[in-house]
Amino acid sequence: MKNVIVGQSGGPTAVINSSLLGVFKTAKDRGADTVYGMVHGIKGLLDRNIVDLSSQIKNDLDMDLLKRTPSSFLGSCRYKLPEIEGNEKTYKEIFKILDELEIFAFFYIGGNDSMDTIKKLADYGAKINSPIRFMGVPKTIDNDLAITDHTPGYGSAAKYIASTTKEIIRDGLVYDYPVVSIIEVMGRNAGWLTAAAALAKGEDCEGVDLIYLPERVFDLDKFLAKVGELCKDKRSVVIAVSEGVKIADGRYVCELADHVDYVDAFGHKQLAGTARFLAAKVAEKYGVKTRAIELSSLQRCASHITSRIDVTEAFNAGGAAVKAAFEGMSGQVITLKRVSEDPYMCITEPADVHFIANVEKKVPDEWINKDGTYVNEALVHYIRPLIQAEIAPLWVDGLPRHLILKK
Amino acid sequence: MKNVIVGQSGGPTAVINSSLLGVFKTAKDRGADTVYGMVHGIKGLLDRNIVDLSSQIKNDLDMDLLKRTPSSFLGSCRYKLPEIEGNEKTYKEIFKILDELEIFAFFYIGGNDSMDTIKKLADYGAKINSPIRFMGVPKTIDNDLAITDHTPGYGSAAKYIASTTKEIIRDGLVYDYPVVSIIEVMGRNAGWLTAAAALAKGEDCEGVDLIYLPERVFDLDKFLAKVGELCKDKRSVVIAVSEGVKIADGRYVCELADHVDYVDAFGHKQLAGTARFLAAKVAEKYGVKTRAIELSSLQRCASHITSRIDVTEAFNAGGAAVKAAFEGMSGQVITLKRVSEDPYMCITEPADVHFIANVEKKVPDEWINKDGTYVNEALVHYIRPLIQAEIAPLWVDGLPRHLILKK
Repeated sequence: MKNVIVGQSGGPTAVINSSLLGVFKTAKDRGADTVYGMVHGIKGLLDRNIVDLSSQIKNDLDMDLLKRTPSSFLGSCRYKLPEIEGNEKTYKEIFKILDELEIFAFFYIGGNDSMDTIKKLADYGAKINSPIRFMGVPKTIDNDLAITDHTPGYGSAAKYIASTTKEIIRDGLVYDYPVVSIIEVMGRNAGWLTAAAALAKGEDCEGVDLIYLPERVFDLDKFLAKVGELCKDKRSVVIAVSEGVKIADGRYVCELADHVDYVDAFGHKQLAGTARFLAAKVAEKYGVKTRAIELSSLQRCASHITSRIDVTEAFNAGGAAVKAAFEGMSGQVITLKRVSEDPYMCITEPADVHFIANVEKKVPDEWINKDGTYVNEALVHYIRPLIQAEIAPLWVDGLPRHLILKK
Repeated sequence: MKNVIVGQSGGPTAVINSSLLGVFKTAKDRGADTVYGMVHGIKGLLDRNIVDLSSQIKNDLDMDLLKRTPSSFLGSCRYKLPEIEGNEKTYKEIFKILDELEIFAFFYIGGNDSMDTIKKLADYGAKINSPIRFMGVPKTIDNDLAITDHTPGYGSAAKYIASTTKEIIRDGLVYDYPVVSIIEVMGRNAGWLTAAAALAKGEDCEGVDLIYLPERVFDLDKFLAKVGELCKDKRSVVIAVSEGVKIADGRYVCELADHVDYVDAFGHKQLAGTARFLAAKVAEKYGVKTRAIELSSLQRCASHITSRIDVTEAFNAGGAAVKAAFEGMSGQVITLKRVSEDPYMCITEPADVHFIANVEKKVPDEWINKDGTYVNEALVHYIRPLIQAEIAPLWVDGLPRHLILKK
C-alpha cells in the first residue's frame, strides 16, 4: 500500500488549493493508492477527521474548480505541535494514526508554523526509525519565508493589491476637490504585500504617492508633513500603509487611537484601523476629504483575480514535494529558486526544513528608499514576474464557481 | 455644424465610461462633427474646461480600454444647479458657452442630482426657445432611480458584491473555531447593493446568514440575539449590512459608537464603521472572533469584475440618448424597461426627466422578509439577470490596463 496524506495549515492564500491539487494529482500519477486529506490540518488528524480526496476530486472539472477555489479546501488550523521532549504522547498518537492509515508520505502546506510541524514530525520519525516521509509545501501571502525566492500565494495577493490600488487611484481622481486615500494592507512584520502597491505605477497610472512598510519606524509628524506637501500640488493623494507599522517606542500606529475597538478571543488587540487612524489625523490637520480603505481578508481570498505564474508555481511546489518523497526524501520543504531574472524562470528545490521553520524574511533595507516612504525599482523588478498572466474564474450564473468539501 | 457635448456627474460606477462610449460612438456614427467632453461635469463646463473626445478616443483599442476603465473618465462633480428663478445669470452663462461651441445636443450621465441638472437646463432652454436638446443617461451603483427597471452600474456592483461575499463566506470556514464576519455595503437610504449579497447562495455556497437593509429599522438587541442563535449551530456566520441602517430613533447604527472618527470637509460624519461597531458588540457579548469587512470604494471602482449585461446596457443607454436627441427629443432621460422576465430582455425607453429627478426608489417592502433579516426569492430573481456574463480586463504586464484623460 502506498497511501499518502496531505493537510493545509495557517492562513489561506488564493492558490493554496493549487498546491493541494499538485500533491493529489502527482501522488495519484505516481501510483499512490489513497490520498487522504486532513480536515483542519494536524488538529483534524488527531481528531481522526480525514477524507479520501478521490471522493472529493472526481474529474478534470473538479480539478479546474479546485484551482479557482478560495480559502483552504480542507480547512486549516493554527495548532502548533508541542516540543517533542516531554510530549511524546502526542507524537505517539499521530504516528499511531498514520500507521493505521498505512501512510507512506505526509505533506503539509503552510507557512512558518506549519514548517515547524514538518520539522518536529520528521525529527520524531527519525528518532523512532519510522519509514514515513514528511514534506513541507510553502504557502503564505506574506512572502516572509526564508530560503525560498518567494512563496506561493504571494504573487496572487500582490496582483490583487496592485490591481485594486490602480482602481482606487483612478477613483480618487474623479472629483475636482482634494482627496487623500489611505489603503491599509496586511503584513504585521514584513512589508512585502504593502510594497506590491508600487506595481500600480505605469504608463496609464501615476502610482501611489507614499508607501510605508513595517520594516521602518513610522513617524507621525513626518508623515503628516509629507501629506501636507503632497496636498499642495496634487488633487488626489494615495498612500499604501502596512497594518503593522510601528512608531519609535514600539507601539503599533493603530494603538495610538484613543480607543480600542475590542480585543479578540486570542487576546490580540484588533490591528485593523491604521488607515482609519491616519485618515482621521490628516482630515483633522488639513481639512481635506480622506478615505480609509482596508483590503482586509479580500487580499487572501480573492480567487477571482489570481496570477497564473503563482497558480502554476503553487501546483508545482505540491507536485515537487510528492516527487521528492517518492524518491526517498524526508524532512524537506520545497523552495522556489529563481534561476533566471530576465526572462524570469523559476524551479523548485528541496531544502532542509530546519533552515526554514520559524525564520522570518523581511524586505531588504536596500529596497526601501532612504526616508522610508517608498520602495525602489529593484523591489518592483523582483515582484513584477510573480503577478504575470491570469487564470479566469469558471463563471456560472454570473458568479465564480468553487469546489466545496463534501462531508 | 452638429456638435454635441457630454459630461459625467456624481459618484462613478464601473460602467459609467461604457455610457460615455455609447454617447461618443453613436454621435460620431450619426454624423456629429465634434463630440466635446466636459471635464468635471457642468462645473467644468462653466470653467470652460472641455476636451474634444476624438483626441482622447482615437481607435478601437481606446474604445475597448475605455469600457474597462474605472472611475469617470472625464471626471465628475457634485455641483447642483440653482433654481432658475433668481439665478438666470448661471443659465445664461451656460447657454452662452453652448452656443459658442455650436452645441446641438447635451448629454449628462449621472444619478438623481444629474437628472435634476437636465431637467433645469431643458426647462430653461424651453423658456428661451433654445434649439439645444438635453438628454439624461442614468447611472448609479445604488439603483435608486425611479421609473427605470434598474440603473446601469448596479449590475456590476452587484456582481462584485456577490462574488466577494462568496469568497468571504468560503474564507470564514477555514478555521475550526467560530468566526462572525460582518460585511458593510454601500447605500445610505436604499438597500439594493446590500441585497446583492443574497446572490452568493447557490449549489456551491451556503450564502450569508443575515441581510440588513436601511429600508427597515435596525434593532441592536434583536440583532445580537439572532447572532447568538446562529453561533450555537454554525462555525462561520456571515452577515451583510448596509452602511445606512438606522435604529428606531433615526440615528445611524454607526453613530452609536462612543467615538466619532471625524467629520468630513462637508460636515458629514464619516459613516463607515457600522460593521466595525456591530463586530465589536458581537465580540464583547459572545467572545467569538469577529471580522468587519468594508467593501468601501471597491464596490464602485472594481472594473476588473463587471457584468457584460451591465456594460452593454450602459453603452446602449448612452447610444439611445443620442438617437433620441438626433430624432428631436429633449428633456428626457433614457430608462431601462424589462420586456421579458424569462428569458431576460431589456430595452431602452425615453421618459420625461421630470418624473425621475429627485425621486428615490427603495427596495419594495414585500421583497424583504418579515423580521427584516433577509430578502426573498423575488428580489434575487430581479437581480440575477443583471450580473450575467463577463467582460475580461485587458491585462498588460500583469495588471488591468485603463484609458486615461490626456490634458
